[in-house]
Amino acid sequence: MQLSIIKIGGNIIDDEQRLAGFLDDFAAVPGKKILVHGGGKLATRVAEGLGIRQQLVDGRRITDAETLNVVTMVYAGAINKNIIAKLQARNCPAIGLTGADGNAILSHKRAHPVTGSASPNAQAHPTTGPDSPTTPALPTIDYGFVGDVDSVNISLLTSLLLLDQVLVFAPLTHDGNGQLLNTNADTIAQELARGLCSTFEVHLIYSFEKAGVLRDAEDESTLIARINPSDYEDLKKKNIIFAGMIPKLDNAFTALRSGVKKVIIGKAEQLPRLLTGESGTTILHE
Amino acid sequence: MQLSIIKIGGNIIDDEQRLAGFLDDFAAVPGKKILVHGGGKLATRVAEGLGIRQQLVDGRRITDAETLNVVTMVYAGAINKNIIAKLQARNCPAIGLTGADGNAILSHKRAHPVTGSASPNAQAHPTTGPDSPTTPALPTIDYGFVGDVDSVNISLLTSLLLLDQVLVFAPLTHDGNGQLLNTNADTIAQELARGLCSTFEVHLIYSFEKAGVLRDAEDESTLIARINPSDYEDLKKKNIIFAGMIPKLDNAFTALRSGVKKVIIGKAEQLPRLLTGESGTTILHE
Repeated sequence: MQLSIIKIGGNIIDDEQRLAGFLDDFAAVPGKKILVHGGGKLATRVAEGLGIRQQLVDGRRITDAETLNVVTMVYAGAINKNIIAKLQARNCPAIGLTGADGNAILSHKRAHPVTGSASPNAQAHPTTGPDSPTTPALPTIDYGFVGDVDSVNISLLTSLLLLDQVLVFAPLTHDGNGQLLNTNADTIAQELARGLCSTFEVHLIYSFEKAGVLRDAEDESTLIARINPSDYEDLKKKNIIFAGMIPKLDNAFTALRSGVKKVIIGKAEQLPRLLTGESGTTILHE
Repeated sequence: MQLSIIKIGGNIIDDEQRLAGFLDDFAAVPGKKILVHGGGKLATRVAEGLGIRQQLVDGRRITDAETLNVVTMVYAGAINKNIIAKLQARNCPAIGLTGADGNAILSHKRAHPVTGSASPNAQAHPTTGPDSPTTPALPTIDYGFVGDVDSVNISLLTSLLLLDQVLVFAPLTHDGNGQLLNTNADTIAQELARGLCSTFEVHLIYSFEKAGVLRDAEDESTLIARINPSDYEDLKKKNIIFAGMIPKLDNAFTALRSGVKKVIIGKAEQLPRLLTGESGTTILHE
């Protein structure tokens, strides 16, 4: 049975017209489906409104307790429930979830080792005290309440999909000890795809603002329609694929190696054509 | 099969210690169960923080678009998802829902007829124009995005309960046309109880700050342990039950007449004893 897992980014969520058009297309996708949504600018607006200062370390946002509370309100509350109501209006039966609901996605709080120059937020683990390790641990950067995924509740998610419900995930997980954690939406889509590909034929669609992987980032006519692992090595060597596209494609190939059938990267506005492979870049296993 | 539907009020949610104690007790309740939570003070704090003015008409809060957005963030986001994460930590598998999720609770926007003196917010329906009724409609008070319940998706909720998931409801519903609506948590608990009592033996527990129905509101030793319809008439005549307790008990008897097995009103801190009838007031069918 086919399962389409579709990730949409914040730029669609921020634009009511584009979101409505996307949801029309999403509701019309045949078969089982999961939507994973990112955050959008509302979280920043709410945090600013509440006077919560964004902390950045090495250019990365720190999810402190107050920020976690804001993203929980915005992602799992405002964005997720509005999408659910709009899907119901399109006769698309949907349930909104975080990774905490039904223990869908279990994660652990990230402890990121410091690399390069010491950061002001770097904290060395204590090397004395009753619980200290015998050798000093590496200092870590504390990104706050950010979760790296450990497992997906395949059995429950399969049951929910078999109830003919569409699942809509907000990018939050939990650690099993009562703590919600902020988790990247691309990662959630990939982990769901990898987890569920033992039960379903999974097609994973990353939709974003570009038409797909381009030979020239400024020219949409240079779209690369298909990439397999050897194309990828070649395109990297020739410096046609570089920078932010590398982690995206690394993720895509990881998903394929785990059994995901197809990964497609392309523009949200072209969802029906992404699904048929007429648009976007299809990442192939071989 | 027994199903316990338990409503907790905002005063428990606002107090981290009391909430933790309540969730310990709730997680230990045997059998199928649903938790319905109210709002608490966080919604007011967030609205104030964001500079959203609370509009009141006749002492009742108006849910304008901005307020609806805040309660969606706070009820369905912050409160609901934190409860879910805390229940998972107590080995209590739980899914958080609004009435929009799985089309669980369908409602319509309230149009409340004006009674008594005209209110500044009262709006007469137009009596001219192509769609106007042949007789002028009564003017209505616009309470904003407030929903009165039409139906409960018994089939889906039964399926979710049979997956051994506890359901946790935030007090929001939807109108089927993409609009979320604010709905009283007591009402949601009652509608779920009435809807699900065709499938389950439903016990409905309203927990609040008092020990139950009291002969003297200031003296908890005057608790009335059991009330049946003839006791109720008697207690009302004698003015022992009056004011805010009347709609609560009217609701309870409505639930019983619809097939709910038992309704219990009492203190959240005494949940285990409420369930066995050793504490609180048990409202009986006859």
